[in-house]
Amino acid sequence: MSPTEVFVNIEQENLIELATAALRGYGISKNDARDASRILVLADMFGVHTHGVSRISSYGERLQVGAIKAQPDIRIERVAAVISRIDGDNGVGPLVGMRALDAAMDLAREFGAGIAFVRNSNHFGPVSSYSYIAAQQGFASMIASNTNTMIAPWGGRDARVGNNPIGLCVPNPDGDPIMLDMALSVAARAKVRRALDRGETIPSTWATDRGGHPTTDPRAALDGFMLAIGGHKGYGLALMMDLLAGLLSGANYLTHVRSWLEAPSDPQNLGHFFLLLDSSRLGPQEWLAERMTDFAAIVHDTPPADPNAPVLLPGEIEMRKFRRAEKEGIMLERKVLDELRTRAARVAV
Amino acid sequence: MSPTEVFVNIEQENLIELATAALRGYGISKNDARDASRILVLADMFGVHTHGVSRISSYGERLQVGAIKAQPDIRIERVAAVISRIDGDNGVGPLVGMRALDAAMDLAREFGAGIAFVRNSNHFGPVSSYSYIAAQQGFASMIASNTNTMIAPWGGRDARVGNNPIGLCVPNPDGDPIMLDMALSVAARAKVRRALDRGETIPSTWATDRGGHPTTDPRAALDGFMLAIGGHKGYGLALMMDLLAGLLSGANYLTHVRSWLEAPSDPQNLGHFFLLLDSSRLGPQEWLAERMTDFAAIVHDTPPADPNAPVLLPGEIEMRKFRRAEKEGIMLERKVLDELRTRAARVAV
Repeated sequence: MSPTEVFVNIEQENLIELATAALRGYGISKNDARDASRILVLADMFGVHTHGVSRISSYGERLQVGAIKAQPDIRIERVAAVISRIDGDNGVGPLVGMRALDAAMDLAREFGAGIAFVRNSNHFGPVSSYSYIAAQQGFASMIASNTNTMIAPWGGRDARVGNNPIGLCVPNPDGDPIMLDMALSVAARAKVRRALDRGETIPSTWATDRGGHPTTDPRAALDGFMLAIGGHKGYGLALMMDLLAGLLSGANYLTHVRSWLEAPSDPQNLGHFFLLLDSSRLGPQEWLAERMTDFAAIVHDTPPADPNAPVLLPGEIEMRKFRRAEKEGIMLERKVLDELRTRAARVAV
Repeated sequence: MSPTEVFVNIEQENLIELATAALRGYGISKNDARDASRILVLADMFGVHTHGVSRISSYGERLQVGAIKAQPDIRIERVAAVISRIDGDNGVGPLVGMRALDAAMDLAREFGAGIAFVRNSNHFGPVSSYSYIAAQQGFASMIASNTNTMIAPWGGRDARVGNNPIGLCVPNPDGDPIMLDMALSVAARAKVRRALDRGETIPSTWATDRGGHPTTDPRAALDGFMLAIGGHKGYGLALMMDLLAGLLSGANYLTHVRSWLEAPSDPQNLGHFFLLLDSSRLGPQEWLAERMTDFAAIVHDTPPADPNAPVLLPGEIEMRKFRRAEKEGIMLERKVLDELRTRAARVAV
């Protein structure tokens, strides 16, 4: 392929190797780097490139100034039979997230359900990656994180709530999981950044400027705050996710969470929440498969408003991209791969 | 007071007595009737009269035709250490809901978290009533139910998803809980019915007519379907709540749930989901109180867009009405009270 091509194809396993090497370039141990890479590469397979290996360079900037610890001492404290509290010791987010997911799955295997409250963490990648790994092992899940503040409370004109992602997922033993992964703003902040990069405007429903006025200018929107879905409803959900992931976890919450841009050398102390449910406790695999397949069929059979746009299930687009990436490899921006290779070249793998 | 007054004031305990007597008039035993009444009266105290004792007459119609069982054999099966599955045996919803809440709280007390999956239930009243009872005992909660289908899938033109309520609540040992209780439509169907009763139009963002076209006519909207918040996001959340409350519980889901109007004599087999978390396992009461009070203060201190409309927390309006109702009694429509009295007069209390 020509070096001027914008997109490059790479196989899953090769991308994990490359991402692992790049993270090792920032001082992370091999096993930890591999676990974190797995989460990020899944994002790229789902087509959610904003949360994939492209994040490694921003993680790297934080690692280099010591704002994220390369060799954290992640501690798991069992505060109740089915609740583990994880202290991420300011490690890289997807690594802390994987440790928390594993802890919650262990509890769910034993007790039917398992919960992990996580503090002293960082941006942990996409929720879908965790949901998918859990679903592969038969677990339904609810996973949330807080973020730095981007959303104004309903009726307010200051960004005091994070655009907190929430994910819910139920496995289908005979097919793909139904998998929702969403932030509570009308649109993702990354989409605003992309519009800025491309010199495009944004719909006026996405965000307001600093003064609280709706804007179509992505730069003004990035200086302002995102709007939540459904007015007071999305605002309310975002708050509740912060209570679960931030406040109850012992992490920072609301305006105590500083953005990486504002405080590049301070630990962010983000929090996460993981609830895992062992679906096999509720009935045999055939029972679950039959119900999930029927559920999907009822939704798919809905007459579409546009005959060319059939009704979809949450996660369906992502799973379609995932299957394709498994077969045909992942299409990534060349500049993202080049950055990883530059970093990876500095370590003896 | 004059018999022509539209609203009448009644004390909490008197309303519970009256609602209990009315439910006994439909053949429900005294203890069961009292437990169910407690849930409904809390709704009236929160000012959510659409989900309060006014529901007893519609429950009663169903009880009279045998579509709800007056004397159900509610069974609690422990399917895992921290998961109970409740079979409501088609009992009245708030009674089944209370039994499920108690079961989940028992588990949470012992293990830190407790889960109840409920099937063979009916309309269970407002989520807030359960959340509030749990919060009083130190439990954080996530509670959901499915309903008959009212929402069209994103991009579809048929109502195949319920307007499933979701509630999240975290207690504050030094103050009111932060308590979200919302359905996933832009507006509640009850609001459309109220507009119809009052001869008013509705905003075009609330619902579509039967053909999938936005409408301002409440009658056309009641024949059509409600729109979910945030387009595909609210649709996705509504689906996931049905998966938790309906599919995983072993209850009906999606179009398998028939409305009371369509199938007045058939059991509805609704499902609910209860997750209870013992907040005391996460830290001492002082720790939680301090964080919750700080959290509330950060939100309340947000500069408001309208100087006369301060920023509020989820549940704040309801808790204000609740405190007032505790002191001054509950204002109820006289016709609702008259219906209860008529029914109650038929039994020896």
